[in-house]
Amino acid sequence: MTQRRIADFGVRIGEMACGPRDAITDVPGVRVGHATLKEGNACTGVTVILPARGDLFTHKLVGASCVLNGFGKTLGLMQLDELGSIETPIALTNTLNVGLVHDALVQYAIDQGAAHGTTVKSVNPIVCECNDAGLNDIQHRAVRAEHVFSAIERASEDFAQGCVGAGAGTVCHSLKGGIGSASRIVPIDGRDYVLGALVQTNHGRLHDLTIDGDKVGLRIEQGIEQLPVDKGSCIVVIGTDLPLSDRQLRRVLRRSAVGLARAGSYIGHGSGEVVVGFTTANRIHMDDPHDVIPQYVLREDRMDVPFRACAEAVEEAILNSLAAAETTVGYEGTKKVALSDLWKGARHA
Amino acid sequence: MTQRRIADFGVRIGEMACGPRDAITDVPGVRVGHATLKEGNACTGVTVILPARGDLFTHKLVGASCVLNGFGKTLGLMQLDELGSIETPIALTNTLNVGLVHDALVQYAIDQGAAHGTTVKSVNPIVCECNDAGLNDIQHRAVRAEHVFSAIERASEDFAQGCVGAGAGTVCHSLKGGIGSASRIVPIDGRDYVLGALVQTNHGRLHDLTIDGDKVGLRIEQGIEQLPVDKGSCIVVIGTDLPLSDRQLRRVLRRSAVGLARAGSYIGHGSGEVVVGFTTANRIHMDDPHDVIPQYVLREDRMDVPFRACAEAVEEAILNSLAAAETTVGYEGTKKVALSDLWKGARHA
Amino acid sequence: MTQRRIADFGVRIGEMACGPRDAITDVPGVRVGHATLKEGNACTGVTVILPARGDLFTHKLVGASCVLNGFGKTLGLMQLDELGSIETPIALTNTLNVGLVHDALVQYAIDQGAAHGTTVKSVNPIVCECNDAGLNDIQHRAVRAEHVFSAIERASEDFAQGCVGAGAGTVCHSLKGGIGSASRIVPIDGRDYVLGALVQTNHGRLHDLTIDGDKVGLRIEQGIEQLPVDKGSCIVVIGTDLPLSDRQLRRVLRRSAVGLARAGSYIGHGSGEVVVGFTTANRIHMDDPHDVIPQYVLREDRMDVPFRACAEAVEEAILNSLAAAETTVGYEGTKKVALSDLWKGARHA
Amino acid sequence: MTQRRIADFGVRIGEMACGPRDAITDVPGVRVGHATLKEGNACTGVTVILPARGDLFTHKLVGASCVLNGFGKTLGLMQLDELGSIETPIALTNTLNVGLVHDALVQYAIDQGAAHGTTVKSVNPIVCECNDAGLNDIQHRAVRAEHVFSAIERASEDFAQGCVGAGAGTVCHSLKGGIGSASRIVPIDGRDYVLGALVQTNHGRLHDLTIDGDKVGLRIEQGIEQLPVDKGSCIVVIGTDLPLSDRQLRRVLRRSAVGLARAGSYIGHGSGEVVVGFTTANRIHMDDPHDVIPQYVLREDRMDVPFRACAEAVEEAILNSLAAAETTVGYEGTKKVALSDLWKGARHA
Repeated sequence: MTQRRIADFGVRIGEMACGPRDAITDVPGVRVGHATLKEGNACTGVTVILPARGDLFTHKLVGASCVLNGFGKTLGLMQLDELGSIETPIALTNTLNVGLVHDALVQYAIDQGAAHGTTVKSVNPIVCECNDAGLNDIQHRAVRAEHVFSAIERASEDFAQGCVGAGAGTVCHSLKGGIGSASRIVPIDGRDYVLGALVQTNHGRLHDLTIDGDKVGLRIEQGIEQLPVDKGSCIVVIGTDLPLSDRQLRRVLRRSAVGLARAGSYIGHGSGEVVVGFTTANRIHMDDPHDVIPQYVLREDRMDVPFRACAEAVEEAILNSLAAAETTVGYEGTKKVALSDLWKGARHA
Repeated sequence: MTQRRIADFGVRIGEMACGPRDAITDVPGVRVGHATLKEGNACTGVTVILPARGDLFTHKLVGASCVLNGFGKTLGLMQLDELGSIETPIALTNTLNVGLVHDALVQYAIDQGAAHGTTVKSVNPIVCECNDAGLNDIQHRAVRAEHVFSAIERASEDFAQGCVGAGAGTVCHSLKGGIGSASRIVPIDGRDYVLGALVQTNHGRLHDLTIDGDKVGLRIEQGIEQLPVDKGSCIVVIGTDLPLSDRQLRRVLRRSAVGLARAGSYIGHGSGEVVVGFTTANRIHMDDPHDVIPQYVLREDRMDVPFRACAEAVEEAILNSLAAAETTVGYEGTKKVALSDLWKGARHA
Repeated sequence: MTQRRIADFGVRIGEMACGPRDAITDVPGVRVGHATLKEGNACTGVTVILPARGDLFTHKLVGASCVLNGFGKTLGLMQLDELGSIETPIALTNTLNVGLVHDALVQYAIDQGAAHGTTVKSVNPIVCECNDAGLNDIQHRAVRAEHVFSAIERASEDFAQGCVGAGAGTVCHSLKGGIGSASRIVPIDGRDYVLGALVQTNHGRLHDLTIDGDKVGLRIEQGIEQLPVDKGSCIVVIGTDLPLSDRQLRRVLRRSAVGLARAGSYIGHGSGEVVVGFTTANRIHMDDPHDVIPQYVLREDRMDVPFRACAEAVEEAILNSLAAAETTVGYEGTKKVALSDLWKGARHA
Repeated sequence: MTQRRIADFGVRIGEMACGPRDAITDVPGVRVGHATLKEGNACTGVTVILPARGDLFTHKLVGASCVLNGFGKTLGLMQLDELGSIETPIALTNTLNVGLVHDALVQYAIDQGAAHGTTVKSVNPIVCECNDAGLNDIQHRAVRAEHVFSAIERASEDFAQGCVGAGAGTVCHSLKGGIGSASRIVPIDGRDYVLGALVQTNHGRLHDLTIDGDKVGLRIEQGIEQLPVDKGSCIVVIGTDLPLSDRQLRRVLRRSAVGLARAGSYIGHGSGEVVVGFTTANRIHMDDPHDVIPQYVLREDRMDVPFRACAEAVEEAILNSLAAAETTVGYEGTKKVALSDLWKGARHA
């Protein structure tokens, strides 16, 4: 990957160390895959996060969600909140495509089950979305089952950011947004855990864009078309290998609001800000012969460091989505400019 | 309709008067339609509730939800809770079909918008489900867009109950369940409002079945196969013309638990009990030129009567689903017996 | 104790076995104490549940809450929900006395800390309440710190039910209510766990009173003054030694609604129905040197039996509160009749 | 008032206009009063917000809450969330004093009721808190009923900020915190509404303190004692005259997180961040003869401006609390330095 990161602009978010990839895939076992659709009127796609190796349905992960602003169509949160577990890949796509992507994940779970000797008759896919109608002919619902399967197959620890997958057509702070990721090392009890964020950015006004405290948006907004209100959405996926309960994980996820706010979001009415998270610790084996099972959790008074890690990783991931994006012309000739075409970075501020 | 109701068994639930149809369609403007699939291995379908006349997307309804047990795949609750409004028909179907039915409602909203001159680029369908895998080859996902459209087209104030639509393959208290409905008149300030319930019943053990206090299940369970645990789900849709805010409506919906409990449910782990509700008062016009708009709400200390109406209507609707159901043989020869084949009613108790 | 229980009326609730005391104190370590104030215009008191032996502040318990109807003044739920832990005794009292009882529990925590070498500067007491203004001069706030301390000191595994402590002045289904308790054995993995309920009953109309399916209220309501609406409250405390997470515990607590509904409650607008629960498993030691700590939880698909235990125990505890109560004359001569003065039991129905 | 505001340091937060007092009392009818206790070991107090003129119990206000981090002892939120209304002054004090202040507000409601001919037998005081144990002998619980009554009596549209009332002993970003306030004008439909924030600041690390994007904390932290973790709390009270439903109001309150994050908070584990809000529109008259009552709400797609107003007002109010505070020596000689002693402002940056 030779894509730009916000660090290439001389920006360093926060004080914690990041992982080797500075991405959600620093969490062992996590992989990310995209299918990008840019042909005809389509400027959209699907991004899948595989939270762990092995069969997810029979070896579920502890999961949680946090809805910062529920104006959105994310599917699967009700069961996630009730049972505290995730049993499928997490898919991101465009707003009107969530039903078809949900159905594709159902098919995937059935197929995976068949391959592992399990008959899946009930499964709860997690599908999140942003509205990419500014660049994409969204009514067409171009993402089909084969794209979901393809994204899953291609999922890897190394993955592209910017205008790819579910980020192909998104718009962030009136610039070209997309997929971004970052990670932070969380030292606990002498061991290094990692917490990673992946975002699909489609929120905010350019006027408000703030990069590490610098109100860059005010300086570069001249001539850029902005909506009067914050429409769009930002989806945040948090992965970690920290030993957390679902309640603790939800507490961590809530700190995504800090990262969003620092980069300039007011969490606008029209911006469906939704956070989904998982930990690879405490895997739930459905074939466990025991009724009483151990889980490992963090002492509650050690939660500050994961909180800070979440805030930092989300802020940086948003900026990485902007840094990696390229100026894009989409549906009906709409053009969204890349940050890198307007700003040379903190070193030249 | 010459279908049986629980009243035909000599049972009268509660003390409040019911509406002329004793169904959710006693609420003016509400219509219900089914598409029933019983061919080959399919024993399933879709039921739609049209909550009001006119374009739902541009003239939204105040809505709310209540999750009694979130082990289920209902789609659309996040936005419903955030914005307190409903903008599509409410669809009920089988667990694995929710994605395809969601996509069908997206298409319906696009088509309706086109017919009314609105370009719909974001819409939040409400899709609820029960798992009918006992009688239906659920992995096949037999419900397709055309079935959804057909159910909408056929929607009427008179509608069948029992083994129809989304109730074709459901199992309630180990007997054949299905769709049931009931209503109650709510007199307020000298005017008669109405509150109606429609249920898709797929929950409970026969052992626990209670009909108006009578533990009928204990008497008739001999020879009936029962699961050791409560798996399934019960979906409840509440409609009313009472002037309520979304918060007040949610308070009403919560009393569905009373009706479920009285009919014998323990709201089991595996039973996703979800309530969705709307009022036809306080319609939200998207083309309203005013920024400040009036809504009418009930004095909070008048909420008791709607609460009781909800509890009674849900209890009766569950029993009506059993009363109307017929003994059914489904996928792989599984047979579920109708209540009417085992019990002659309260008069012969 | 020679107090009446509902079993003495020939009534057996549910199908599960109860513990040796059929009370919340069947959970090892749990004790209950009362201070009853019946002098002058006072007809009130305080009941404390000590959830475990040892210092509760430094050895917290996993806890959770569930608000069925939030029209009430229960204190302490915000932190309980955030952290999933309980660090004081749980106190029940009258509505206007919650502030003073809260302050008394603060003093108790400070004193306990001093005795154990801990300086307590922040503590979250749980104080629940019912409105006993029908029999008690509630504006006087007769419960003082010394009564709270006295109730704690006298706490025991054997405790009185009916018109004692926080139940001295409560009214249930228009009869004399009070404190009631019951328990159920929960066999898991070859071991017998126990789940117990303690209730403070102050809810419901006599018209609706149902005893094991029998609408007793309809038969005995003649001549008994009833409010047109359900005002009051029912507080439920659930204790268990089951290995549960706070999320799982909250799921259990929600089934209290089933017990309330079966005994005749509609969870009325004016009735603040609040459930607080704890497990003595997974005790949280503040001096634990480890940052990562083990907790034991139940396989999620084993939750049905605890759910049923909760529903049964709450239903029976409500009836026990009625069975143990005695006809009481309170403030300004108001009289509330005991169930036992109106009904001789199921054997004579 | 000649107290410093953050504007005196050359800082202007956001882009919206503020009201004439730039304080919560720009909302017509709102008054704020303090009782400050600084004698002996006490460095604490109570601050009351009177949300409107007239009897609050019989003429309630639409209210809502939002818990950003529930590690705190705020009292009264359960009923506020259930009924969406506020019926007492809102009091802020220290953590261990909430019970006594609650009891004082009960007495106040009883007395007010008696003066207006109402017998108050149930009332839901709202009491929020921060832990001022760093400067105050908190175990002593110095705030008594007379202080609460005195703060109410002295409540005025002009009120002091900084080290007063409930802010006497609080610590913010390791500097002396206290009470701060700010307001924003919200133009809707050609009319100017106002939204105001009042904060009690006791949160954050100096290292993280950010003033309008400028990381001031990094420059001035030398020699200042800092806790390794974020302990404390920040209480936010939002008042407005915007016509909002309780749901809409809650959506507004959530944007307080944006203001907190921009000033440097990570919403730490130990920091109980709680928001309580009210609108003076839609007053609820208990003696209204009608069962159906009108309320006025904002079109949902006009919510962006109130959201932004809340974020800006909270950010500025936090900074105002720091600007107005003075270096304070408290209990056991602990000293907390004022921002103004370390930083001369943006003009000299």
